[in-house]
Amino acid sequence: MGAALGLGERGRGRTAPNPNVGCVLVRDGRVVGRGWTQPGGRPHAEAMALRQAGEKSRGATCYTTLEPCAHRSHRGPTCSDLLVEAGVARVVAATGDPDPRTDGDGFERLRTAGITVETGVREAEARRSMAGFLTRRTHGRPHVTLKLATSLDGRIALPSGESRWITGPEARAHAHAERARHEAILVGRGTWDADRPRLDVRLTGVEDRSPRRVVLSSRPTTRHPSESWGRVENTGDVHSQDDPSFRWDDETSTWEVIPSPHAIADLAAVDHLLVEGGAQAAAAFLRAGLVDRLLLYRAPILLGSGLPATGDIGLADLASAHGRWRLHDARQLGTDRLEVYERA
Amino acid sequence: MGAALGLGERGRGRTAPNPNVGCVLVRDGRVVGRGWTQPGGRPHAEAMALRQAGEKSRGATCYTTLEPCAHRSHRGPTCSDLLVEAGVARVVAATGDPDPRTDGDGFERLRTAGITVETGVREAEARRSMAGFLTRRTHGRPHVTLKLATSLDGRIALPSGESRWITGPEARAHAHAERARHEAILVGRGTWDADRPRLDVRLTGVEDRSPRRVVLSSRPTTRHPSESWGRVENTGDVHSQDDPSFRWDDETSTWEVIPSPHAIADLAAVDHLLVEGGAQAAAAFLRAGLVDRLLLYRAPILLGSGLPATGDIGLADLASAHGRWRLHDARQLGTDRLEVYERA
Repeated sequence: MGAALGLGERGRGRTAPNPNVGCVLVRDGRVVGRGWTQPGGRPHAEAMALRQAGEKSRGATCYTTLEPCAHRSHRGPTCSDLLVEAGVARVVAATGDPDPRTDGDGFERLRTAGITVETGVREAEARRSMAGFLTRRTHGRPHVTLKLATSLDGRIALPSGESRWITGPEARAHAHAERARHEAILVGRGTWDADRPRLDVRLTGVEDRSPRRVVLSSRPTTRHPSESWGRVENTGDVHSQDDPSFRWDDETSTWEVIPSPHAIADLAAVDHLLVEGGAQAAAAFLRAGLVDRLLLYRAPILLGSGLPATGDIGLADLASAHGRWRLHDARQLGTDRLEVYERA
Repeated sequence: MGAALGLGERGRGRTAPNPNVGCVLVRDGRVVGRGWTQPGGRPHAEAMALRQAGEKSRGATCYTTLEPCAHRSHRGPTCSDLLVEAGVARVVAATGDPDPRTDGDGFERLRTAGITVETGVREAEARRSMAGFLTRRTHGRPHVTLKLATSLDGRIALPSGESRWITGPEARAHAHAERARHEAILVGRGTWDADRPRLDVRLTGVEDRSPRRVVLSSRPTTRHPSESWGRVENTGDVHSQDDPSFRWDDETSTWEVIPSPHAIADLAAVDHLLVEGGAQAAAAFLRAGLVDRLLLYRAPILLGSGLPATGDIGLADLASAHGRWRLHDARQLGTDRLEVYERA
């Protein structure tokens, strides 16, 4: 199942509206097939693994991170049917598929065909891995990660706006890898106005995984933000044009604009949304209760005065601030520390 | 030496102007005497250990965290003389005593008498343990620890000033234990005006170790702060009088006032100073380059808007913020995290 979970991770941020499933077929102690949901959502992980295994899938055990689908689609046969046809002997799943068109029917189809079915194996990890799909199914919106990169005293920039760099290269590389795991990245209008960030993935080998870009802007926009990009070219501010972070590409860039955090439900084919800044956008998402996961990169520096990480998040008192976040993971990235919190 | 270092820690914050030394005498593989500098600075650690060992010190090895003193005082004989007289065979020291009245003379006295001397054993730990004494010797001022208790986004209170509680009971108990390791605690005038903190040590068994209390106030004070304590009684603000943190005692309390961070050199018999708040006092000490150690308690909560941890610390640019702090220790205290940084 660990291997299946790892394969499932490959699809994270690229399979919406389908879940990023991973699948491993094992026969006689050997892996005979591996699959993961492909970009765009097809082929499904099980279909890919079965194709790879061919005749070797007969009598094999299928480890899959999600209940095999049972709903027919014009895009292909169901995975539960495929598993039956292939003669798989046993299916071990991490968790059930809440999609009402499957929701137990996948397991039922398998059992009816005489296949042994186990479920609930490493379920928490699978649910975390497919949080985007599950949040979409449960709440009808993307799973939202808020990224903050701060000093020890919670600043994201000097009073001048200078924020390059607070964190070191290891933390920034990690943040780029996180981008590749989201279908879309959002910044607030203030950050957009000030920085025109590229928000792409600048890591060797995954440059093609740069997500869609979204601006949160409550002000009516009479024209598409991309129409005013030319303004940036001659600002001469602290963000030098020599800094590749602030180049942009008129030809290929597209920005989507949403008026409020609640409008993220309108973002089609986005199951994972990364909110990257700045303080007002972060506060708006926190105030709306729409942050599921917090990525906190922290550098061992003090800035004193400067721009705060967030704005008013609508707390009535201190007691109500507690118990909302649970530390899930922490690691050192060079001299910086990353902490990952999840909604408690 | 580990045992000697542990004994030396018992005196931290209570031995100024003397160093908090620890000493263990070992003969034939058995501990025959243990000593640590007593409150007020006398007896010295070696004298205490030798007295405990009596005749068993003959031929013993003396493990001491600091070079035995060689300067005569009206308060007693030198430790190097005592060790010679006791017939100790070998002295293992962690580090030398920079006091110009000893500074190598202690080791010399021992060697002249035929005692084997080794030094530099666990020196870094010893220097950290006696940082107060060493900072006083080197810079003519106390060793300064700045304590910050913040949310994940670097806030120390809500906009209303409400700050009880950001951290949990484990972190607060740890902070009280830290108080007992300092001769004095300082708060800014703003914190003093708002809170009249007791700043005492509310831990069973060490209540008697509550340090001296200092206010940083650049405004001329026409009367001693203690004269205006009565004002607090009826404020009815968020700090309830039922909260023991804000009771005070007219009879026994004394506050010292200094006009600027640089005036800490005027605090006699204070080798360890703990700066506890608020943002302006923290910023003043950081701006003055007078913070040697940073105690950062961090709760897994977000506050959004609110009072920042520090004010302007005088940074010209981001580059100059880097490389100033080195993480020395980190631990989990309940749901909170403590990080200890040292001047890099």
